[in-house]
Amino acid sequence: MRFSKTFIKTLREAPKDETAKNGAFLTRAGYIHKEMAGVYDYLPLGLRVIENIKRIIREELNKLGCEEVQMSALQNPEPWEMTGRFSDQEVDIWFKTELASGGVLGLAPTHEEPITSMLKSYISSYRDLPLYVYQFQTKFRNELRAKSGILRGREFLMKDLYSFHTSEEDLDKFYAEVEQAYGRIFARLGIGDDTFETFASGGIFARYSHEFQTILPVGEDTVYYNADKSTVLNKEVFNDEVLSDLGVKGQKFEETTAAEVGNIFKLKFKYSEPLELKYIDEKNKQQTVYMGCYGIGVSRLMGVVAEKFADEKGLVWPEEVAPYKYYLVGIGENGVAEAEKFYRGREDQVLFDNRNVRPGEKFADADLIGLPYRIIISDKTLANGAAELVDRFSGESQMIELANLNKL
Amino acid sequence: MRFSKTFIKTLREAPKDETAKNGAFLTRAGYIHKEMAGVYDYLPLGLRVIENIKRIIREELNKLGCEEVQMSALQNPEPWEMTGRFSDQEVDIWFKTELASGGVLGLAPTHEEPITSMLKSYISSYRDLPLYVYQFQTKFRNELRAKSGILRGREFLMKDLYSFHTSEEDLDKFYAEVEQAYGRIFARLGIGDDTFETFASGGIFARYSHEFQTILPVGEDTVYYNADKSTVLNKEVFNDEVLSDLGVKGQKFEETTAAEVGNIFKLKFKYSEPLELKYIDEKNKQQTVYMGCYGIGVSRLMGVVAEKFADEKGLVWPEEVAPYKYYLVGIGENGVAEAEKFYRGREDQVLFDNRNVRPGEKFADADLIGLPYRIIISDKTLANGAAELVDRFSGESQMIELANLNKL
Repeated sequence: MRFSKTFIKTLREAPKDETAKNGAFLTRAGYIHKEMAGVYDYLPLGLRVIENIKRIIREELNKLGCEEVQMSALQNPEPWEMTGRFSDQEVDIWFKTELASGGVLGLAPTHEEPITSMLKSYISSYRDLPLYVYQFQTKFRNELRAKSGILRGREFLMKDLYSFHTSEEDLDKFYAEVEQAYGRIFARLGIGDDTFETFASGGIFARYSHEFQTILPVGEDTVYYNADKSTVLNKEVFNDEVLSDLGVKGQKFEETTAAEVGNIFKLKFKYSEPLELKYIDEKNKQQTVYMGCYGIGVSRLMGVVAEKFADEKGLVWPEEVAPYKYYLVGIGENGVAEAEKFYRGREDQVLFDNRNVRPGEKFADADLIGLPYRIIISDKTLANGAAELVDRFSGESQMIELANLNKL
Repeated sequence: MRFSKTFIKTLREAPKDETAKNGAFLTRAGYIHKEMAGVYDYLPLGLRVIENIKRIIREELNKLGCEEVQMSALQNPEPWEMTGRFSDQEVDIWFKTELASGGVLGLAPTHEEPITSMLKSYISSYRDLPLYVYQFQTKFRNELRAKSGILRGREFLMKDLYSFHTSEEDLDKFYAEVEQAYGRIFARLGIGDDTFETFASGGIFARYSHEFQTILPVGEDTVYYNADKSTVLNKEVFNDEVLSDLGVKGQKFEETTAAEVGNIFKLKFKYSEPLELKYIDEKNKQQTVYMGCYGIGVSRLMGVVAEKFADEKGLVWPEEVAPYKYYLVGIGENGVAEAEKFYRGREDQVLFDNRNVRPGEKFADADLIGLPYRIIISDKTLANGAAELVDRFSGESQMIELANLNKL
């Protein structure tokens, strides 16, 4: 993409209320625009990052046989009343609205109830199971305080997957597959080394649920980890009883802040029982469907990755997430001509800064925008028949012969 | 995709309240699920159709240099109050909700105000113009009555494009380009021959706006066309004054029902003036930005295409829109083995009905689901070294040699 043709505009200063690095840099670099606290627009660069995150998640989930759907945001109270969760006492983050023709609706903060209710029309026999259904969907949560850039939103994008099974064994097996898939997803997002599967409270039907927590100074959660980080626990289950249950009592644990990027939960009958999601088994007997649910915060992940890697100059994107791979700058007539040659056929990989501004301004914007590699072609580099390739992550610079450049 | 592995379930009967063909067949064939009147979920087949429609629109808009963004659904009243449109008297289809921390928010029924307001941060000079920004976004409209399947929704998917210019000439030029692009989009969607650009009322700043109307018995609009359909008018401008302005007075016009699938509008200063979207021109003078807006109803289009082509047996999808190209049925051991061979490597193009049900049931579902081609491989066809290929649109059947089948 040519910079001059695209809607990217870097700002000298971030809004004063963006105290977290992710919000400040993402705003300054032209990825997001704040509508109000916790509500953001995604500009072209930001939408490309979101689409990359979605693509990675989609690829890993499709491998497990998961299928994509799209549920509605507007919620009929009925299924929520059957689980007691339409009540503001029970769920305190509802946005509610009124139908012109009468009646209250909710804006979905999550989708267990409607998806369980919907599947009553499609699941009748053991032959229809197992079933794994996911969506990328905007969630609405009426948070009293929204803060930390895009880490805690009132309107945000989430991937939510729901699984449906005939037995606990089958649920356990799929749960383990999702754990593996989540590991691959966070690794591809570049945060694998700092993201840990933690023990969290399990509710009525399971001893524990699990979260995926990325160690992060601005994270809103507190987790505890042992020396080799083989056991990581959320604060709410960090007690002697759980430590001894997990066989790690007596080990030394450290405390740190972290951001929750995913969670997985064996729901079992939590929703299928009150909503009566049943099937007929091989012996012609009616049974209740076993369920699991598995979330990933998509827009939050954009903030977490931004926050994790940003340095004092700006953003630093891992390659699979970056909106473009290369930031291209040609200096001088010959430099620009060679840059044009490199650009052609790579429009979707290269952000070509062809603006009529000083090289220094281009370099500063390159650092701020944070693409993985910067390529500079100037009279100086051409004197050596080469271009300069700078790695945004390491800062390392190398000269690369023009012939080899074209192999990139 | 293997039928047995996917979440597709056809229903014998459509809900009684789905009186329009599109709602009835899309529901029965497992494309959509109704949450409440005017609010639908998209099941895997339906989501594939929606994604195909989006892809076609995206490809055609990107050719014009348009860039994709994603605005929020939650709306701060402020910019809407500057145009007077937050008032329920002025705009009578608002869904409104309350922030836990205080204050009323709206759910966007359209996005002129927030996008104009947002661009104040990014447009300052004539060098920043023109700019063409679009999104695919869920819109919320609190319709008193929602009906006709997915043709009139309370929550629906729309593509909205906004253009920003330094002059009326530049706006006119781009407006003409969008007219052409819309023609290509509707042609690719298979409804080109029945979709007409109509004259509609223009508001304060333009004599006319234009709509794209698809002739359809269940359409909610009324349009008038002359003998060669070179001039088509919406009801609100069908009067002597307009007919003589357009030079078609005295011609014979027929009346018909139609569904609005797109609209384009020269807004000029309608929003940029009250919201003060300005730029500095070449002579260092402040000027107001010229604007245009251009909508396409994405989920409505799915309903229009379904409604347009469905016959008594079910849906009939044009090739670019269809969720898969081929419906594959193998009958008997050898037929299934050959079908497996054809399926391999074509997982994304072929819906392989490998269910353990009678061929008759498969054929009925093939007709209901409406993929462009059905391929049947059985002992009977194999006796001739061939497969049967049936065109869903024409109903024509031909035998095709196995060697040629593999070239498909």
